Amino acid sequence: MRQRKFWGWGFADEGASEAEVGMLAGLAAQRFGVDSLGVVPPPAPEEISLGRPRVQVPASLAGIVTADHHARLVHALGRSFPDQVKPFLRDFTTAPDLVAFPRDEADIAALMDWAGAQDVALIPFGGGSSVVGGVTPPGDRAALSLDMGRLDRIREIDRTSRAALIEGGMFGPALEAGLKPHGLTLRHFPQSFEFSTLGGWIVTRSGGHYATGPTHIEEFVEAVTLVTPAGRIETRRLPASGAGPDTNRWVAGSEGAFGILASAWMRLQDIPKQRLGTSIAFDGFHRGAEAIREIVQAGFQPANCRLIDAGEALATFAGDGSADLLVLGFESAGAPLDALMAGALEICRAHGGRFAPPKASSTGGQREGAAGAWRNAFLRAPYYREVLVARGVMVDTFETAITWDRFDDFVDTVKARVRDAILRVTGRPGQVTCRLTHVYADGAAPYFTFYGLGRGDLADLIGQWQVVKQAASDALIELGGTITHHHAVGRDHAAHYAREVPGLAVAALQAVKRRLDPKGIMNPGVLLPG
Amino acid sequence: MRQRKFWGWGFADEGASEAEVGMLAGLAAQRFGVDSLGVVPPPAPEEISLGRPRVQVPASLAGIVTADHHARLVHALGRSFPDQVKPFLRDFTTAPDLVAFPRDEADIAALMDWAGAQDVALIPFGGGSSVVGGVTPPGDRAALSLDMGRLDRIREIDRTSRAALIEGGMFGPALEAGLKPHGLTLRHFPQSFEFSTLGGWIVTRSGGHYATGPTHIEEFVEAVTLVTPAGRIETRRLPASGAGPDTNRWVAGSEGAFGILASAWMRLQDIPKQRLGTSIAFDGFHRGAEAIREIVQAGFQPANCRLIDAGEALATFAGDGSADLLVLGFESAGAPLDALMAGALEICRAHGGRFAPPKASSTGGQREGAAGAWRNAFLRAPYYREVLVARGVMVDTFETAITWDRFDDFVDTVKARVRDAILRVTGRPGQVTCRLTHVYADGAAPYFTFYGLGRGDLADLIGQWQVVKQAASDALIELGGTITHHHAVGRDHAAHYAREVPGLAVAALQAVKRRLDPKGIMNPGVLLPG
Repeated sequence: MRQRKFWGWGFADEGASEAEVGMLAGLAAQRFGVDSLGVVPPPAPEEISLGRPRVQVPASLAGIVTADHHARLVHALGRSFPDQVKPFLRDFTTAPDLVAFPRDEADIAALMDWAGAQDVALIPFGGGSSVVGGVTPPGDRAALSLDMGRLDRIREIDRTSRAALIEGGMFGPALEAGLKPHGLTLRHFPQSFEFSTLGGWIVTRSGGHYATGPTHIEEFVEAVTLVTPAGRIETRRLPASGAGPDTNRWVAGSEGAFGILASAWMRLQDIPKQRLGTSIAFDGFHRGAEAIREIVQAGFQPANCRLIDAGEALATFAGDGSADLLVLGFESAGAPLDALMAGALEICRAHGGRFAPPKASSTGGQREGAAGAWRNAFLRAPYYREVLVARGVMVDTFETAITWDRFDDFVDTVKARVRDAILRVTGRPGQVTCRLTHVYADGAAPYFTFYGLGRGDLADLIGQWQVVKQAASDALIELGGTITHHHAVGRDHAAHYAREVPGLAVAALQAVKRRLDPKGIMNPGVLLPG
Repeated sequence: MRQRKFWGWGFADEGASEAEVGMLAGLAAQRFGVDSLGVVPPPAPEEISLGRPRVQVPASLAGIVTADHHARLVHALGRSFPDQVKPFLRDFTTAPDLVAFPRDEADIAALMDWAGAQDVALIPFGGGSSVVGGVTPPGDRAALSLDMGRLDRIREIDRTSRAALIEGGMFGPALEAGLKPHGLTLRHFPQSFEFSTLGGWIVTRSGGHYATGPTHIEEFVEAVTLVTPAGRIETRRLPASGAGPDTNRWVAGSEGAFGILASAWMRLQDIPKQRLGTSIAFDGFHRGAEAIREIVQAGFQPANCRLIDAGEALATFAGDGSADLLVLGFESAGAPLDALMAGALEICRAHGGRFAPPKASSTGGQREGAAGAWRNAFLRAPYYREVLVARGVMVDTFETAITWDRFDDFVDTVKARVRDAILRVTGRPGQVTCRLTHVYADGAAPYFTFYGLGRGDLADLIGQWQVVKQAASDALIELGGTITHHHAVGRDHAAHYAREVPGLAVAALQAVKRRLDPKGIMNPGVLLPG
């Protein structure tokens, strides 16, 4: 098995190529008007010393629990911006005391019993790709990271209903590989797909790659099994029900605060066979957004409908920076797409959009043009970030959703506030770009990327980022957005989550937590106050 | 304002016509092989004596609270089968002590404060159309029925995002009339449409008329305001969010156990302009169901997709009883429908379906043929029931949902068990028919109607019904279905709800209730144990 990189994205043997590193370093220096950028090398495991575990497990659990140095390093951090800086600072102070690899629900229950008796924090760990501190141990308390990697099987496939019972620790690629021989797909492709798990997707309400239609993971959940310290909740397989508040829906988004997502029955789809796509250039982001609003309100459901502002189009090689681009695509397993594309393009044309004739392709093929360039940048982005962070560049993303009536002002104001914060804290102009990742009849989900060159050395960078992040989060909440559309709450968004969601609604969830996790061992401080 | 009928469906001046009564009585006598059926006349208000109210409100609430005899009668019962028999027995023992008509949220909060201090049960009352005992006061405890009829306005319309802020007490017809001048519709048409409210729909997770696509009321909820005894929960208007478990989703289905749905921002649609429909005859219900499964799994989303078994087709004048009928229709506000209908009919043909060419119509027009006949019977059914009940006929419906892998056996076994129960308890064969109201890629929602001629006089009928209802509910739960797809839990389904939903999930909801309703005054015994 390939080893995971303990200080960055993906596998230990994977990263940006030398050519990519040269290009990124050159572009960054040019953008910030400096000759070159100093580089901090990544850490080696032996550079890090971790304290001895504060707790030990009894013999009955010894077979599934380890205090191995590398395992503790891998489970110390998620993939937020601070989580990417800390390894370069050799800061692994959040490393768990122990790491467990349960084989089944019985192991999970036994670990919970032990943790409850010993007052040890249990940190559910799927792929570890959280960008919001969702898998980071609390640090000030004995903690065990509960890695779900061994619960990684498809247990049953119901071809008739197109559903499968899948264990929570299964990663995206294995899951799709297991379904493919049956002609089925979950068709859920978050950016973290390769390094995230079904259980992680469900408890964080993951957003899929597709812009419209069913794309959020909770829409595909037919039933769940949640193991909590107070016992087990297994919901019934049903296509729909009106019997009280939907259990599946409050398990979705619980972020490990109530228990562990052991398995779920998931609704599947036939593998799409055809795709029809093009990209449309607009003079102005808001004109493009207006076209999108009409498209979705008319009932079209494009699989891809990604509006990329001119700055982001330039940065991702999707465009030359002279226009805002809409990457538009329809997919189906059989139904014809031409009329749909023609209808959507008609709307784009009315809003001044310019486009080449759409191209049909099979869904297995590579994408060309702007869509292909953008997609490549999208998949390489996590690797690029570690290159930039090593050179003192602050680079991060945040995302939200807002109704259409507020959309234009909202996007402009958020960008301006974050740009101001970068200038203020780094003393140098930065860049803030925006794209739309998901669109709805009543609003859209803008996704922002920001860059700035940190002032001082790497040790100061997290503090500077905190100022910018605070400005961004304040703007989202004050201007009526949500603190997260699909990145989740974790630790990093907990304060703003409490400003977004009514206090009494949070209190209701705390009452649920006290019932299911009376000793407060489950992911303390994530989502709800610890 | 027209007065509501206190002993049956709808307005006091509305009911089955003399011709309809004659036809129904004749058909029933024929079906059960008797010469004629005795008739119990409906009650007059002055026949009923109610005890004096056990509680009184202070002067500050006197303006919005009444102990009026007719008001107490109207709020004594919902529209379940026993609720339809009891008036003929002159049994209004569940009448509330008082009825309140709050004007705004402040009135609701004041009523809650008073009820908490006096230990009075508060029963939220929208249209009173619950068929599961959801609005029935507990009887053994002082109770105030809180009628939402004065919170009946559209407060704001956001044309850009296509959303409106609507008060919880607004009835279906007024709501649609208020949206129509803006070219908008909520497009939610449950059978109770005329006599049910937005707030009632949301807290019972109402199912709309449409068979596929967004049809459940919770999919149209953008934000809610819930007034609880512990305070107010107002969620943020958002097209989507990934911030923790979705508050809107656990308010949906709370059935008044947590608080009162004061208002909601609802997602709207453009009014559909065109419809294309036909009906398809199948030799066998399961062949029709198989065609439907293929249609929805291929991604078609027909607005109507209602499979009616041969017996129900006969009973509703939609067919001659020789074949099972699928009423199939597509609707849109602009996008072409021909290709969709052709694709769906191709699948029907492959399963042996026979059909006339589809007919296009404007959505405002009357429907013809099987669809029109069925629709008329559907809308008249509640009025017909009171005619039959007065003649000692047991007639009721129940509904559920099940995944496709179990579908065939499930429908057959449920029908057989209910038929057996009717024969056993009434000593005479009855009838059980089935239709599909909603269909999904992973399953469907079968809706059953049953008839039997009660043995003995009307006073025995509720007991006989209970035996049949118990057999039906046991079958649904034991065979893997849900106790309700869209009728809700109320009091009547509470025991089977507790068998369907895992105990720990129910316990979590009870923890929420204790936090929001610490004195246990909100609709006690509905959904959760009192």
